[in-house]
Amino acid sequence: MASESGKLWGGRFVGAVDPIMEKFNSSIAYDRHLWEVDVQGSKAYSRGLEKAGLLTKAEMDQILHGLDKVAEEWAQGTFKLSPNDEDIHTANERRLKELIGETAGKLHTGRSRNDQVVTDLRLWMRQNCSKLSALLWELIRTMVDRAEAERDVLFPGYTHLQRAQPIRWSHWILSHAVALTRDSERLLEVQKRVNVLPLGSGAIAGNPLGVDRELLQAELNFGAITLNSMDATSERDFVAEFLFWASLCMTHLSRMAEDLILYGTKEFSFVQLSDAYSTGSSLMPQKKNPDSLELIRSKAGRVFGRCAGLLMTLKGLPSTYNKDLQEDKEAVFEVSDTMSAVLQVATGVISTLQIHRENMARALSPDMLATDLAYYLVRKGMPFRQAHEASGKAVFMAETKGVALNQLSLKELQTISPLFSGDVSHVWDYGHSVEQYAALGGTARASVDWQIGQVRALLRAQQA
Amino acid sequence: MASESGKLWGGRFVGAVDPIMEKFNSSIAYDRHLWEVDVQGSKAYSRGLEKAGLLTKAEMDQILHGLDKVAEEWAQGTFKLSPNDEDIHTANERRLKELIGETAGKLHTGRSRNDQVVTDLRLWMRQNCSKLSALLWELIRTMVDRAEAERDVLFPGYTHLQRAQPIRWSHWILSHAVALTRDSERLLEVQKRVNVLPLGSGAIAGNPLGVDRELLQAELNFGAITLNSMDATSERDFVAEFLFWASLCMTHLSRMAEDLILYGTKEFSFVQLSDAYSTGSSLMPQKKNPDSLELIRSKAGRVFGRCAGLLMTLKGLPSTYNKDLQEDKEAVFEVSDTMSAVLQVATGVISTLQIHRENMARALSPDMLATDLAYYLVRKGMPFRQAHEASGKAVFMAETKGVALNQLSLKELQTISPLFSGDVSHVWDYGHSVEQYAALGGTARASVDWQIGQVRALLRAQQA
Amino acid sequence: MASESGKLWGGRFVGAVDPIMEKFNSSIAYDRHLWEVDVQGSKAYSRGLEKAGLLTKAEMDQILHGLDKVAEEWAQGTFKLSPNDEDIHTANERRLKELIGETAGKLHTGRSRNDQVVTDLRLWMRQNCSKLSALLWELIRTMVDRAEAERDVLFPGYTHLQRAQPIRWSHWILSHAVALTRDSERLLEVQKRVNVLPLGSGAIAGNPLGVDRELLQAELNFGAITLNSMDATSERDFVAEFLFWASLCMTHLSRMAEDLILYGTKEFSFVQLSDAYSTGSSLMPQKKNPDSLELIRSKAGRVFGRCAGLLMTLKGLPSTYNKDLQEDKEAVFEVSDTMSAVLQVATGVISTLQIHRENMARALSPDMLATDLAYYLVRKGMPFRQAHEASGKAVFMAETKGVALNQLSLKELQTISPLFSGDVSHVWDYGHSVEQYAALGGTARASVDWQIGQVRALLRAQQA
Amino acid sequence: MASESGKLWGGRFVGAVDPIMEKFNSSIAYDRHLWEVDVQGSKAYSRGLEKAGLLTKAEMDQILHGLDKVAEEWAQGTFKLSPNDEDIHTANERRLKELIGETAGKLHTGRSRNDQVVTDLRLWMRQNCSKLSALLWELIRTMVDRAEAERDVLFPGYTHLQRAQPIRWSHWILSHAVALTRDSERLLEVQKRVNVLPLGSGAIAGNPLGVDRELLQAELNFGAITLNSMDATSERDFVAEFLFWASLCMTHLSRMAEDLILYGTKEFSFVQLSDAYSTGSSLMPQKKNPDSLELIRSKAGRVFGRCAGLLMTLKGLPSTYNKDLQEDKEAVFEVSDTMSAVLQVATGVISTLQIHRENMARALSPDMLATDLAYYLVRKGMPFRQAHEASGKAVFMAETKGVALNQLSLKELQTISPLFSGDVSHVWDYGHSVEQYAALGGTARASVDWQIGQVRALLRAQQA
Repeated sequence: MASESGKLWGGRFVGAVDPIMEKFNSSIAYDRHLWEVDVQGSKAYSRGLEKAGLLTKAEMDQILHGLDKVAEEWAQGTFKLSPNDEDIHTANERRLKELIGETAGKLHTGRSRNDQVVTDLRLWMRQNCSKLSALLWELIRTMVDRAEAERDVLFPGYTHLQRAQPIRWSHWILSHAVALTRDSERLLEVQKRVNVLPLGSGAIAGNPLGVDRELLQAELNFGAITLNSMDATSERDFVAEFLFWASLCMTHLSRMAEDLILYGTKEFSFVQLSDAYSTGSSLMPQKKNPDSLELIRSKAGRVFGRCAGLLMTLKGLPSTYNKDLQEDKEAVFEVSDTMSAVLQVATGVISTLQIHRENMARALSPDMLATDLAYYLVRKGMPFRQAHEASGKAVFMAETKGVALNQLSLKELQTISPLFSGDVSHVWDYGHSVEQYAALGGTARASVDWQIGQVRALLRAQQA
Repeated sequence: MASESGKLWGGRFVGAVDPIMEKFNSSIAYDRHLWEVDVQGSKAYSRGLEKAGLLTKAEMDQILHGLDKVAEEWAQGTFKLSPNDEDIHTANERRLKELIGETAGKLHTGRSRNDQVVTDLRLWMRQNCSKLSALLWELIRTMVDRAEAERDVLFPGYTHLQRAQPIRWSHWILSHAVALTRDSERLLEVQKRVNVLPLGSGAIAGNPLGVDRELLQAELNFGAITLNSMDATSERDFVAEFLFWASLCMTHLSRMAEDLILYGTKEFSFVQLSDAYSTGSSLMPQKKNPDSLELIRSKAGRVFGRCAGLLMTLKGLPSTYNKDLQEDKEAVFEVSDTMSAVLQVATGVISTLQIHRENMARALSPDMLATDLAYYLVRKGMPFRQAHEASGKAVFMAETKGVALNQLSLKELQTISPLFSGDVSHVWDYGHSVEQYAALGGTARASVDWQIGQVRALLRAQQA
Repeated sequence: MASESGKLWGGRFVGAVDPIMEKFNSSIAYDRHLWEVDVQGSKAYSRGLEKAGLLTKAEMDQILHGLDKVAEEWAQGTFKLSPNDEDIHTANERRLKELIGETAGKLHTGRSRNDQVVTDLRLWMRQNCSKLSALLWELIRTMVDRAEAERDVLFPGYTHLQRAQPIRWSHWILSHAVALTRDSERLLEVQKRVNVLPLGSGAIAGNPLGVDRELLQAELNFGAITLNSMDATSERDFVAEFLFWASLCMTHLSRMAEDLILYGTKEFSFVQLSDAYSTGSSLMPQKKNPDSLELIRSKAGRVFGRCAGLLMTLKGLPSTYNKDLQEDKEAVFEVSDTMSAVLQVATGVISTLQIHRENMARALSPDMLATDLAYYLVRKGMPFRQAHEASGKAVFMAETKGVALNQLSLKELQTISPLFSGDVSHVWDYGHSVEQYAALGGTARASVDWQIGQVRALLRAQQA
Repeated sequence: MASESGKLWGGRFVGAVDPIMEKFNSSIAYDRHLWEVDVQGSKAYSRGLEKAGLLTKAEMDQILHGLDKVAEEWAQGTFKLSPNDEDIHTANERRLKELIGETAGKLHTGRSRNDQVVTDLRLWMRQNCSKLSALLWELIRTMVDRAEAERDVLFPGYTHLQRAQPIRWSHWILSHAVALTRDSERLLEVQKRVNVLPLGSGAIAGNPLGVDRELLQAELNFGAITLNSMDATSERDFVAEFLFWASLCMTHLSRMAEDLILYGTKEFSFVQLSDAYSTGSSLMPQKKNPDSLELIRSKAGRVFGRCAGLLMTLKGLPSTYNKDLQEDKEAVFEVSDTMSAVLQVATGVISTLQIHRENMARALSPDMLATDLAYYLVRKGMPFRQAHEASGKAVFMAETKGVALNQLSLKELQTISPLFSGDVSHVWDYGHSVEQYAALGGTARASVDWQIGQVRALLRAQQA
């Protein structure tokens, strides 16, 4: 390898080492988060080496003991990084050598940083997915508890942000909770693909020294073994999937946040955020702002940006390991932190939110029953298309007369259709209205209870 | 509803109807692709209405018959759109009414376009996912067949695009095939979530007329029923998931395409694309360009763009149906078409590709065995870190002397380590080298056979 | 070039030509939009060839005449595509040859489709940017006209969607108009970089036949000439910039749409959309939905998706022309169409929107003057931080007593600060409040007039 | 404001303050980077207050002095954050009050954090854009210097990664340098829009206290004043534009990196990276990997991810300030750091790169002159289409005979066309070939010199 020490053309001075390049190349600033799983992976690997006859039992014990010491230093905050520790793998092996001497040099036998780093990352993510799953279910459970407690509260359901039909407040809560159960289902699938052992793939060609990958799998409790060493060291599907999982989950939470921000405006006045999740204004003394919800909404962008960034980095990359893949870890760490905070803050917001039942009730208006008025005619035998038109005429008549829809007299209604009779008055009862929607998934009480039961069953299944 | 007919301030003329708005709002140009599933959904729904007593048996039969006629017209290309057919649902119901009269007006009872359109889309996607799955497996099978037939061909494995270690050509093929098996696994998961019935959710509140959603599920052969009517009509997770599935699959194919483009350069000369998948130059008579592979690579961007677009559209959207959701269908149709073409072209490329074995063999060089040289010392008892250093010294010595690594004499090697002896000559055999990598997932013949077996087993499981 | 006719392994049958590949490779389905500029570019190029002595005057005239005929056929819809016309360049040259014979074969001398297509695209986009610019200014003008006419209407200004301070309705309109003037400025910059001539770059190395690029520039009225032939044929900055321009413009319009959707809810009731830009519900007779605004909001996602897609396609692409670049045109055409429709619909919406002044006035509440109350104290000499706290105490006192902020008696206010005196009553006048905000850019009438003047001046500068 | 201290349903304990929410909401961890510009903005603002009569000269001096002290503490690293310092504005004002007492409370008069933060960010970015511009030009200059020094080196130009035509190595360098000059042009435009004063916009309605914004503009040396206070506090166009600028610039650098990675493979062997920008393998002793270039390539994804994230965050956001906008700063800081490192590393790579001239020369082959062979016939009067075909026949004849294109005898060529004569031998000179491409932007020496002159002129204009 030719040694080059100087610049040839222009540019700033470049010696044997460019400090900006060193920093650019180094990953220790963030991959130190992997210290624990790196030690865990190395311990398993040393067992594999011993079984393969590449370490004696005594050497293995020495390495295991040394690695425990390394972990202890990290745990206690006494691990000292040296300037040459460009990544966590280098740092840990360097320290191991200081602690136990030359035997440390046997640990990397047949292993490459290519299979090591991806083993570490999978171990870390497996654990992290479990944590996020628990936080997600805490949020879902909080929502379902609340839905159960408040299922007799009615308020307007909106489509296109226009008042549509009366629904139960719990039906709204459950609409978001149900979306989150899909996130939970997807997270399990991601986790299944995270939980696959790449160790023993070397840099590209595999392991030539008889290391038993099934032993490594058992030691590290992986659910499966990667099939191809070239793919194993360079695929980052599990990272991309995790980032997309988070993006879609955040999209759900952004929509819930949007609803609550609207419901918390002076104009809607359906809900009031706890002070713990609001902030004031440096200028306007009367303000109380829903910062928590706005931050949740905004994080959908940030998280998706990480997903987009990784996908673009992967696009068109030649096979096997390229340094481009180093972009994976910061994305995972940042998104994991964001998801953890968002899920906890959302749980806090939901569990402390005040609702204004009277405002909710007041916002229901007879025109929201126009659909039910049409159904009234349908039940009397009119085809729906005609009933829809008849009800529309009633709406127009009420608007023209400047009265509420339920204030049209029977006589007036009968000018629209002779099928109207005295029992039309039953239409104007909001409680009666929602109870009609009794098909599975509807807003009738029984159907809401069914939903609660379904989500609770998923929760139990998850915990089992 | 106030009637407004004119502009108030500036702007171009705006009458009661703005033709640009009409076109902007209309979806018939693309949602006509849904004609068949729209009829299918309506037929099931009319059965539900009959069971609920909202249609007589005779009315149902009339509707079923009429719908069959509508479908026939579409199939035969004789269906005539009218200018007011803003979407496929309107078009089909309009035509039904022309065919059977007022009874047609009963079909939409309790149904909304909100639950109808998403039922249609799910039916369409379910079918389409099956088609894509079959195309994906045809590609995988082609790759595995080829891997099996050519497993004795060796060539350089690269990391960082630098020659790394000798591998089997089949190991390279399998590295991409294995990635595609994950895409297949994910597609099944997407399909599972596509295959959920939303019909019976109405516009927002559910169905109030006793329509039996389990009957609808059975009629349309859905795997499950949506849990919440507000969520059912406005969640597009299954679309986002499908678009992301396609994005990740395309990322894999873009990487395979990149490899093959490189391997097909004059400089690598490992492979030659069939003329059927190449094109010439309008200017340079000698050119033969890998357009098929470049197009595959480029589509990764296009497909991901659709995924990014939908996620951004969903971000922060208020609950329930908003017209923004109309963006879902064009994305699905375009991406489905793209995936179908890409998978078929990729299959064609792989099945007709010529390989140049002699060039592949010629590209193997002794320095690619430096790792094996280190392992040689490891097997003699030297810790790997020292062996790596010793091998590095040998590489440097050979470079300095201007000879190939395997041309260093035993004496020269022994100046580096006394552990070198006559049997070091076995290191320089590429065939022997790859056979060492016998751990699961490695490049040894047995391990490659194991991979082929694993993928074939997945294929069989898929077909079952 | 070896002729290969069959598949080697697996896969479907692949003959000399794969019809799926042909369709995959062909661009005529969309690049036919370029017919006019392709003719225009070819006419200029034939003049360049004549000046370089590669065509006689007679040959040039023959070609020019033939090209005019080709254009005529396109304009009249009589141009017939042949199955081998894979792109517009091939189609036009093929037809030219049919019309004028072998001389047509001289037109492509020294030209490549690489420089031809990018010349065409730049010509098309230059024209299209002018159209979009005019539509953008029509929207801005409509907004400014409206702002001028309605500048005495007050309504609540919101931050965090919480009522903040009284502002003029015109101030809100102008806040969006001003954002659009930046889009106009950016579009001009994009257009400047679109308006650069690449013709004469050949496939990669340039033009070897003495074609005078400055003549071509003059013929086609380009503002500049590309500097490097390799870059000229493969850079798509101007496309990426255009797509990003559209994305940012759509982000602005999505925010304006969001505001108007909110202001049009029953709860806000500040504005009412014209029927021409609303639609009804297939289920709910009373509904009138702001579909136009929702579609505008949603297109921000679609347009950005195209930008993201192109950037990903470009990432990591090797130098010079690769077929991946074929992705540029559909993105440009789709986004151009979308922008054209969106700008016109937005203009229609704004020019026909009804405002409800009385509701706007009713929504102003004394607590929105808490900041002014603090300023009152500041004017009496109290440091702002203390004044902010004092005003906050007044807000709390009013809330506690259940009265409006302006209903606190002077005595009560004086318990908070002795600086309060009789003139505090002036604070409670909304008209007086807004007039205080007279610094440039504020909501006072003079400042709003200044804004109108500034935007009108930009409009005049644009038209000049 | 009601005080709520506990959770109502489920969820973890939530007291008056949720520490996770506090951290979620706080921005001090990153906006502390703004300390200097925050002080700068406050100093200008206090001058504005003094002129408006809201501060006495003595108070202003006290504040200015105190702010200098605050800045000094930051500069010396002695500034101590308190736990309540949620952002840099709070921290600086809190400290100012500790230093100078109650007068500090006058500084925020008429100002909001909404206009303050965006003023700070603009000041920071203005400075940062200048730094990045200088680094960008250092890279361009290095490239141009190199292009000038090595302009007699020829090597293959590729399209579709297939050898196309001989070009100058300098032509390749310039193709990337020219792309970067567009980035420089765009950066200036971004900077122009960054350099606009928002201070004096308050929270939403403007400034009511007679603060002279033109004075503030002069004090802070801004190029213009924002036109509308609502827009000024909530538009982040300048951030989005900066992120997109960086994304497009990174796309260029990713393409250059891709080329150099390819040219540095064993197979191409055109260039060799300096050791300072390469790294070794932990497993394979012979490896030297182009990590610097791979990292540059990968950052295109990361940077674009930030752009995508911000755009998504902005989409559909209601008017004026929402906490979502807090996402802007981390994106700006991260992307700025990345760009700074990337530009410096790229400069280092280019200035220390070794080229292998003999390998470059050896890679030129006669078939790359097939286009010139066609031009030879064109010069003899044959229409280009026929000449292209004739040259193609020659290529095929040579391939069939297994000889190089230039080894066909004159007799053999004459079987293709009688226009071939003895002077055809001049075609086979690579140096002669490139010299033909003398049109502006081509690869002839004069044209390359012209390019160098053009870029140097831009550099001079930039420095002026």
